[in-house]
Amino acid sequence: MRKVAVIGVGCTPFGEKWETSFRNLFVDAGARALEDAAISGEQIDELFVGNMSAGRFVDQEHIGALIADYAGLATKHVPSTRVEAACSSGGLAFRQAVTAVASGNADIVVAAGVEKMTDVGTGATVDTLAGAADREWEGFPGATFPGLYAMIARDYMHRFGLTREQLAMVAVKNHRNGARNPNAQFQKEISIDTVMQSSLVADPLRLFDCSPITDGAAAVIVAPLERAREFTDTPIQVLSSAQASDTIALHDRRDISTLDATVAAANRAFQLARLERKDIDMVEVHDCFTIAEICAIEDLGFCSKGEAGRLTEEGYTALDGTLPVNPSGGLKACGHPVGATGIKQVYEIVMQLRGEASGRQVDGEIGMTHNVGGTGATVVCSILGVV
Amino acid sequence: MRKVAVIGVGCTPFGEKWETSFRNLFVDAGARALEDAAISGEQIDELFVGNMSAGRFVDQEHIGALIADYAGLATKHVPSTRVEAACSSGGLAFRQAVTAVASGNADIVVAAGVEKMTDVGTGATVDTLAGAADREWEGFPGATFPGLYAMIARDYMHRFGLTREQLAMVAVKNHRNGARNPNAQFQKEISIDTVMQSSLVADPLRLFDCSPITDGAAAVIVAPLERAREFTDTPIQVLSSAQASDTIALHDRRDISTLDATVAAANRAFQLARLERKDIDMVEVHDCFTIAEICAIEDLGFCSKGEAGRLTEEGYTALDGTLPVNPSGGLKACGHPVGATGIKQVYEIVMQLRGEASGRQVDGEIGMTHNVGGTGATVVCSILGVV
Repeated sequence: MRKVAVIGVGCTPFGEKWETSFRNLFVDAGARALEDAAISGEQIDELFVGNMSAGRFVDQEHIGALIADYAGLATKHVPSTRVEAACSSGGLAFRQAVTAVASGNADIVVAAGVEKMTDVGTGATVDTLAGAADREWEGFPGATFPGLYAMIARDYMHRFGLTREQLAMVAVKNHRNGARNPNAQFQKEISIDTVMQSSLVADPLRLFDCSPITDGAAAVIVAPLERAREFTDTPIQVLSSAQASDTIALHDRRDISTLDATVAAANRAFQLARLERKDIDMVEVHDCFTIAEICAIEDLGFCSKGEAGRLTEEGYTALDGTLPVNPSGGLKACGHPVGATGIKQVYEIVMQLRGEASGRQVDGEIGMTHNVGGTGATVVCSILGVV
Repeated sequence: MRKVAVIGVGCTPFGEKWETSFRNLFVDAGARALEDAAISGEQIDELFVGNMSAGRFVDQEHIGALIADYAGLATKHVPSTRVEAACSSGGLAFRQAVTAVASGNADIVVAAGVEKMTDVGTGATVDTLAGAADREWEGFPGATFPGLYAMIARDYMHRFGLTREQLAMVAVKNHRNGARNPNAQFQKEISIDTVMQSSLVADPLRLFDCSPITDGAAAVIVAPLERAREFTDTPIQVLSSAQASDTIALHDRRDISTLDATVAAANRAFQLARLERKDIDMVEVHDCFTIAEICAIEDLGFCSKGEAGRLTEEGYTALDGTLPVNPSGGLKACGHPVGATGIKQVYEIVMQLRGEASGRQVDGEIGMTHNVGGTGATVVCSILGVV
């Protein structure tokens, strides 16, 4: 297997983009990535696209071909494959792109993620997102996504003594980071009071505990490490990318407050990269809800179960903390265009490792991403490092 | 890259399966494949699932995790990835599974395909399938899939003198083959008159020119060739699997009656396998409409442009002809559960090469599959051979 590096990245601003379309979003992200890698479309050998539900959001399937076409690659007949695993679709697209290069199947491969969520009403959006959970055993009986994560939050608070305020501190930190990210959907700091006084969505989760509905796209370009310096002075090596599954329904889990697929994917990612937890300088985790960041920090192995609330309160995960978590602002403040999120996480870690994250820059040479589908039925973790 | 072999296959009966569910379909196909390979679920390292539009057909996304779960693999945290490229989703899942094994990422990998299409009404089905074409430039202005293929048929008949009767002969042949396939949706022979007197769908295409709406699933298991005999006495080697894209909209093509992505994917598949057209003993082609089989035979390179109608009429593509085309009955008679079709094609070629196709058995040691997404925006071709 060949070593693989990221040679270019691009990301659109995230937000409610009513003025643009699904196809314009990915063309925008792709153009930024090509410009960043200083290559032309002609040089691309293959594409992988992460997208959760364009079929329901914009009535369009066959996303791989659509993207190859609008990227001007159709006449070259470049293979293009959409992969889907709900909110972890982007992370899976990245892993497949890495495999394509590592295997020698292709040299220059684009991994993109895109979602246009605001072209349908709120009811349709909530129902579409419920398709990430078990439709027959969760969705049809009435469970929404905030409802499922609220159950995790209740269970966790009861067992580990996490306070409502500590939960709010996750949102406060991520909004502080998002305020320093020009692509973030919310570039505004908030206080604990903002969270505590926001409307209740699913007890104990309030509006500011939840990631927003977002339009956006991101793209990264990978190539064999040995060729990376043809394209960039700052290649970032992909040290590992690992994926794991779990039961799709929350109630079938061994423990609803531990995402076993996160544990499995992280263990595998560290094993493949031959690294330990202490080697990680920054991490982008999947904070679709504040409680999800708390669980992620623990399930990734950065602290013991029950400690992440206190660490958050002590500033351990802040931009200037020991382990900065979600320097981009995370899903919470940067936004969560579901299929694009996993690619945006890689974008953020690459920008950080290159030292190009300006106002939100943190120190370090090794970063990690953690992308979750549903309530943890699919997880992909990737570790990237400065060459 | 390691050599890869198919060590087990399974396929459900195809048809209108109102008595069963989406998840039961793939569990059924998977169980058949496991039994065929004489392995247990414990031995599986990774899954790839082809599915076009469960989001719209059964309100469920996150298909990879769902399938891993219902296959009993969730607790082992086996990675599971859904890939989508409209009607070529299954073919792409197969290619990704082959890459996973060839690269050394995994040893025992399942490629499955599934679609449950009959749980929604006809209008919703037609609209969902239109999501395989360009929604903004074809679907919204009113083009349906039969309409798009009708344009291809009209153009082809005008330019190459194909007769309406020759087109009907494709359906007659495929129904004759389907009548010998116990999994086929239609196990009944038809005459040219049956086709000619059936209702007009989109001029010149009539009801019996069109593949049906189908529920079904299929699964194949691949492993390194060097380990294949641990599992089976009749391993079938994957000699190549190649994929190509084209413009998603038909009107953007160089020539609407030539599927350039078929030409590109086939050329690549033959190049990778180091074989010539004359080496192929049988082929399963993507006959979503009768005209599609005519184009496929030519675009795959088995004859010159304009000759496939005459060859069909002369019996060249019949079960006892020089090059049997669609021994399974094809999409036309065996049925077309869109995400499953590409895997069913591999299933059929494996059954043929093993000599287990009973009533529809043809001679030969090398077979080929040809799976198309949309009107040709994605094509994947695979070549398989007796070891």
